[in-house]
Amino acid sequence: MRGAVIHAPGDVRFESLEDPKLLHPTDAIIRTAVTCVCGSDLWPYRGAEPIGDPHPMGHEYVGFVEEVGSEVTAVKPGQFVVGSFATSDNTCPNCKNGFQSNCLHREFMSTCQAEYVRIPNAQGTLVATDDVPGEELWPGLLAVSDVMGTGWWAADAAEVKPGSTAVVVGDGAVGLCAVIAAKEMGAARIIAMSRHKSRQQLARQFGATDIVTERGDEGVERIKELTGGIGADSVLECVGTAQSMAQALHSARPGGNVGFVGVPHDVALDGQELFFSHVGLRGGPAPVRRYLPDLIDRVLNRRIDPGKVFDLTLPLDQVAEGYQAMDERRAIKTLLTP
Amino acid sequence: MRGAVIHAPGDVRFESLEDPKLLHPTDAIIRTAVTCVCGSDLWPYRGAEPIGDPHPMGHEYVGFVEEVGSEVTAVKPGQFVVGSFATSDNTCPNCKNGFQSNCLHREFMSTCQAEYVRIPNAQGTLVATDDVPGEELWPGLLAVSDVMGTGWWAADAAEVKPGSTAVVVGDGAVGLCAVIAAKEMGAARIIAMSRHKSRQQLARQFGATDIVTERGDEGVERIKELTGGIGADSVLECVGTAQSMAQALHSARPGGNVGFVGVPHDVALDGQELFFSHVGLRGGPAPVRRYLPDLIDRVLNRRIDPGKVFDLTLPLDQVAEGYQAMDERRAIKTLLTP
Repeated sequence: MRGAVIHAPGDVRFESLEDPKLLHPTDAIIRTAVTCVCGSDLWPYRGAEPIGDPHPMGHEYVGFVEEVGSEVTAVKPGQFVVGSFATSDNTCPNCKNGFQSNCLHREFMSTCQAEYVRIPNAQGTLVATDDVPGEELWPGLLAVSDVMGTGWWAADAAEVKPGSTAVVVGDGAVGLCAVIAAKEMGAARIIAMSRHKSRQQLARQFGATDIVTERGDEGVERIKELTGGIGADSVLECVGTAQSMAQALHSARPGGNVGFVGVPHDVALDGQELFFSHVGLRGGPAPVRRYLPDLIDRVLNRRIDPGKVFDLTLPLDQVAEGYQAMDERRAIKTLLTP
Repeated sequence: MRGAVIHAPGDVRFESLEDPKLLHPTDAIIRTAVTCVCGSDLWPYRGAEPIGDPHPMGHEYVGFVEEVGSEVTAVKPGQFVVGSFATSDNTCPNCKNGFQSNCLHREFMSTCQAEYVRIPNAQGTLVATDDVPGEELWPGLLAVSDVMGTGWWAADAAEVKPGSTAVVVGDGAVGLCAVIAAKEMGAARIIAMSRHKSRQQLARQFGATDIVTERGDEGVERIKELTGGIGADSVLECVGTAQSMAQALHSARPGGNVGFVGVPHDVALDGQELFFSHVGLRGGPAPVRRYLPDLIDRVLNRRIDPGKVFDLTLPLDQVAEGYQAMDERRAIKTLLTP
């Protein structure tokens, strides 16, 4: 088969790779229906994370089950399945507590920009749809496997409640999906922080009521102006830099909540400042598996359409261009079709 | 009148001071029934916080209303009142959100180790009891004004739920009151981290089911052993050092919660570590006012007895010895009687 391999910053190639095989009785092999490039793939692509030896890329997927190991009974060959970027057995104590992305047997997916993918912990990770959904729904279901699940988690971790005010920091695919989540959870006011016209438009389509274009201290000041001087009930941090985290923490009202879902890079938090802010903070890799049944339903019922975050579709063999377009911010998110 | 004044580390004196006067129509003057020394008073006493010019000390109080300003109608002269170490108007947006200790008009109390005290924001801060409670209840009510309210907040911020497992880091008065709170909130297992015999005994009286004497990594390991390998649902951090905070964060299970109520001193949190832990974190000065009516009831009904944290009672004029006894850990907490 063929798939994406990163060799160095800026250097992603589409190459021949060995076909994946069942390695454990808990594995499944899927044929990729659609896959994509994630904002977090840009960290190594931009040289902000070490790459080491050349290796495959990608952790988002929906596909058709090709083959299952002897211990996998939840899905069967031919079914259309959605999973999570973090695999989980869905039976360990952390899974039972709803934190499947901290499963004691967790393996992060990392080979999904390819024609076939091995899914570890398939029994607990994959959710099959009743029928094969129409192709127009595949992008939305693909989004559920990562960015939509992560946006949902941002809203959940930030404790968005009906009638509340939510701020979304970050206008990437996750931030835009976080707007969807805040809307679905009933936020009355959703303030998206974005300086990009096309992203602002999509944020508004998804339910944002206000757009703030300022950043840093100015952005925080603007949020305060919009929230009676005290800040927002919930802030959904969807970037992961020191600046975005500071912006998020300072935008929350005393006693408000920040959900942070962008993997933090060089972020240190001052204990005393956090203390006097009274802000609650929770983050982490999204427990997508917890949300899968619900989010799949919302997509299949066409209640939400997170597939709109894909504004560039390329054949899988043009994956390199998919990275480049996102790196140069010509695309929010690139869908790849095998 | 007379009261405590700190001049330098280790140097607290009982001196003549001007009688407090009403400065604003929102003030009240109370005659102190009992007051006490707080663990946080030891930071300047030990030279860990700057002192500056000599100044009065103390932020815990119960007393009798002497005089009220023209805008104070909620309490009247002669009544027995309980307040909070942080005053609040109880009407601003932060107060309405339940974070009275972040009131827009907040003033921290700082002159309570004295015979008379001026209470700013008296209308929103003071809660009067129906009758003058028996003197044996004064210590418990005094505890409510700070350490019991703070222990309650620790349990609340750490989201202690019925049937859950709670760990309390810190065996000072706040930590011991946090045990009471965890018990009242229905925790099935309460693990107190303490190496002091007398404090362990009090923790057990208050409801601790297990005692862990190890600290640091060993302490965390022991907590993991007691919690099926994953950590506790809730951890109540009642110290405020870098070590105690690390111990707290590492003792919580993925998706668990840390409530931190010890004012952090030189505590920096690593964003990425917090992220991958999935632990929720919330701290701050306790919104005691939110809890006052409920906690006063629990004390008056003799359902809880946080007054037991006072294991040394001295006349107010021996306040210096009260500090010294706590500094040398001869006393958990010193009650002072005018």
